[in-house]
Amino acid sequence: MAGRVRIQDVAAAAGVSVATVSNALNRPERVNAGTAARIQRIARELDYVPHHGAVDLRHGRRSAIALVIPDVTNSFYARITRGAADAAYGHGFSLVLCDSNDDAERERDFFTMLADQRAAGAVVVPRGADRQRLDGLRRRGIPLVLTDRAVPVQEGCSVAVDDVAGGRLAVEHLLAGGARRILVVNGDRAIRQCADRWQGARQAVREHRGAAVRQVSVPQMDVACGAAAVRELAELPDAVFCTNDFLAVGVVQALLARGVRVPGDITVAGFGDLDVATVSAVPLTTVRQPVEELGRAGVGLLLDEVEAVDDHTHEARQFPPRLVVRESAPRQEVLV
Amino acid sequence: MAGRVRIQDVAAAAGVSVATVSNALNRPERVNAGTAARIQRIARELDYVPHHGAVDLRHGRRSAIALVIPDVTNSFYARITRGAADAAYGHGFSLVLCDSNDDAERERDFFTMLADQRAAGAVVVPRGADRQRLDGLRRRGIPLVLTDRAVPVQEGCSVAVDDVAGGRLAVEHLLAGGARRILVVNGDRAIRQCADRWQGARQAVREHRGAAVRQVSVPQMDVACGAAAVRELAELPDAVFCTNDFLAVGVVQALLARGVRVPGDITVAGFGDLDVATVSAVPLTTVRQPVEELGRAGVGLLLDEVEAVDDHTHEARQFPPRLVVRESAPRQEVLV
Repeated sequence: MAGRVRIQDVAAAAGVSVATVSNALNRPERVNAGTAARIQRIARELDYVPHHGAVDLRHGRRSAIALVIPDVTNSFYARITRGAADAAYGHGFSLVLCDSNDDAERERDFFTMLADQRAAGAVVVPRGADRQRLDGLRRRGIPLVLTDRAVPVQEGCSVAVDDVAGGRLAVEHLLAGGARRILVVNGDRAIRQCADRWQGARQAVREHRGAAVRQVSVPQMDVACGAAAVRELAELPDAVFCTNDFLAVGVVQALLARGVRVPGDITVAGFGDLDVATVSAVPLTTVRQPVEELGRAGVGLLLDEVEAVDDHTHEARQFPPRLVVRESAPRQEVLV
Repeated sequence: MAGRVRIQDVAAAAGVSVATVSNALNRPERVNAGTAARIQRIARELDYVPHHGAVDLRHGRRSAIALVIPDVTNSFYARITRGAADAAYGHGFSLVLCDSNDDAERERDFFTMLADQRAAGAVVVPRGADRQRLDGLRRRGIPLVLTDRAVPVQEGCSVAVDDVAGGRLAVEHLLAGGARRILVVNGDRAIRQCADRWQGARQAVREHRGAAVRQVSVPQMDVACGAAAVRELAELPDAVFCTNDFLAVGVVQALLARGVRVPGDITVAGFGDLDVATVSAVPLTTVRQPVEELGRAGVGLLLDEVEAVDDHTHEARQFPPRLVVRESAPRQEVLV
């Protein structure tokens, strides 16, 4: 074997994964005793010397996990961070925050750092991470849990909110309130969340006789674009479902400015249950996502993989959102 | 000397600080060469063996700093985190996020962890941290920078926004718009920020002939309490300064509901420039704080102390806020 012996070489010689080698050397109590002894013997025979941060392996288990997110000032990612921080604290791990500031290059730097410093693992809300790069990290024995992005379950664990269910929930509520002609104000459908929420809206409408849905796509998911979407609309719908709360705030403002009553003439639902939902001129009925839970479950699955390499099974966990009913689309008896 | 030799013993023998010993052993290139050699000799003579995480000292410099905050889902702390993350990345340090979830006990655990793992240092936005505990960390050679809390400059570095200047800025703007009777809707004045913003408001009014200011204190700084503060007010002022944006949103809503025009009859200013400021029924004139800058400067001062122990001078840096003018109190010619 030419050059320095790598952990991969030990793994290949032992016929186990890199993560199992790491565990056998680092946390032997967590690996089957016979397996651990065998791997340790092979590592000695190959004269394997842990490198860099791997030094920690000799002195105790690695006690840091990383969270990679695009932007901590976005309340969605802040809530993921809160959940991840809670869970890391609960398990006695420290949490290294890797905020890429929406910069794909910085995100790549973080992945390099994770590999060099040999973090125990990472929960990743990918910005631009390509599958190849993520696979590379996994091959280096760093377990990853992806958040808010679908991933084939054989490749690793993932956690996500069920956005189809969210769109469906909102529109079913509008239909139950008596609305039949539904307008969906949506962002770019190339965005997975926008596509899923629209799909959920259509599912709800399809199951409701006499109901119809159409969609307006806006360039930015903000208050101004929400307002613009309905300001000059010739034919008003019975209800509007906006795929985020900022759009809904704008829709409500523009409707009121036209003299249309909300919810008297038109009901409106948003998505996200952000701060602005309660601050809207008419407080918003909206869909609340269990975002903290994503972070918490992400860390839970990650540590399961870190600490129980041999009997870990990857999971793709999806969390159902729930409806928060406020004035813009109040709860009503279903018309029978 | 009984028992194990501690880094404190080396520091005492060498007549230098613990941080200087740490630097001499860890980053000798950053300490005066003669000093480093002398400390290293003393450490050898005393048979000093680094403990625990101090193992890192033999293998390279410590490359993690910590950020201790009460709640990452609060946008103020999220923006501090963003600034700190940017600066840490820029300096090649990783950032360990310690989110106490507003729990003083958890905060104490983080401080213990920092001491045990010997982080290079920490930027702290204290929740319940008492001075004694913070002093204890400093004595263990862990530099701390306090954010958003005044601290005597001889004890360490600190960074804060100038809230007096912020209150002053807002009320000067309302006065320049022609208002003479100013109402301040404030939170609990036991909170340092509330007291400071009120003080700034009074300063502005004192310097304006014929102007008067009074204050209403509300139990919660939210939309409902803002609305309640003016809903049944017998004598309306010319202008309202609210010490946060949520209060201002409520004030605007309640005034509009009373048939009072904003800004036609009454101008309103908020504080914080949160998301809700632009979503308010009338977009808010408000005070924007350079919060990211707090995090960025906090990390900058910390790393200055970490990397240049011998010639570091503590600083108490204060950042000026700035006014963001929107519809609720538009810019007007000053009446001469």
